[in-house]
Amino acid sequence: MELIQVDIVGLSTSPTSGGAYALVLGEIEGNRRLPIIIGAFEAQAIALELEKIQPPRPMTHDLLRDLFEAVGAEVLSVVIDELRDGTFYAKIRFVHNGRERQLDARPSDAVALAVRVDAPIFVAPAVMEEAGIPTEEGTGFPLSSESVEEEPQE
Amino acid sequence: MELIQVDIVGLSTSPTSGGAYALVLGEIEGNRRLPIIIGAFEAQAIALELEKIQPPRPMTHDLLRDLFEAVGAEVLSVVIDELRDGTFYAKIRFVHNGRERQLDARPSDAVALAVRVDAPIFVAPAVMEEAGIPTEEGTGFPLSSESVEEEPQE
Repeated sequence: MELIQVDIVGLSTSPTSGGAYALVLGEIEGNRRLPIIIGAFEAQAIALELEKIQPPRPMTHDLLRDLFEAVGAEVLSVVIDELRDGTFYAKIRFVHNGRERQLDARPSDAVALAVRVDAPIFVAPAVMEEAGIPTEEGTGFPLSSESVEEEPQE
Repeated sequence: MELIQVDIVGLSTSPTSGGAYALVLGEIEGNRRLPIIIGAFEAQAIALELEKIQPPRPMTHDLLRDLFEAVGAEVLSVVIDELRDGTFYAKIRFVHNGRERQLDARPSDAVALAVRVDAPIFVAPAVMEEAGIPTEEGTGFPLSSESVEEEPQE
């Protein structure tokens, strides 16, 4: 079961989403996209880093990155590995004291960390098969305000 | 210069605060109180733990606590040690691999972690002298919507 590497292809909200955002992950070698509903704070945490905005003080996910660095733990990857009862689950994989470890996390926290440490983002095939949306290459993700609310939430 | 131990004595907002909250720390051996303006997300992170509400999935500060645990790092205390240009600065002090370390953090993140690991919260005397508000014992903190917006922010 080979994991599917993805990139962030979108981060969007709609007036009817109640403050939630859709984080859209796209297959690097493929055309499926995976939308995950995340909170406004977590969306901001991802957006600040994508836009290379450096807040004057460390935000919460910067502190998380700083802790990994301070204890000499290297983040290997993050993996969205499960979708259960409409909730996505993720793992942060890292090496500490020469041993490979993982931490349970919400996909939004995992991705907000991944963009800060340049770690690859993976999705388990079963998750992509269940929640991935095929798109024609280059047409972008057909996100409407309706579809945002119908997607599984983390 | 002995640090002043404090407890959380309040967490409040007002209709005119623009979504910000006042985190009020009170001296354990004394009657001064230190209000710090924090964001809504950080306030929620503190409140969830104070109310002993366990969200179904780890929130961001739970993940931070989980990482400390996973790498065998013990949080000793958090210290609000500086107030500069209206911004409060804090440190998270911890032991990792037998060595004492510290991480720069915003007071809100530091306190949200402290309540999760039962670590004491300290304030540097200079910070308390500059921003602390004396109150009569037992009368509570005289927080008005006006005072919230005039306090230094983190």
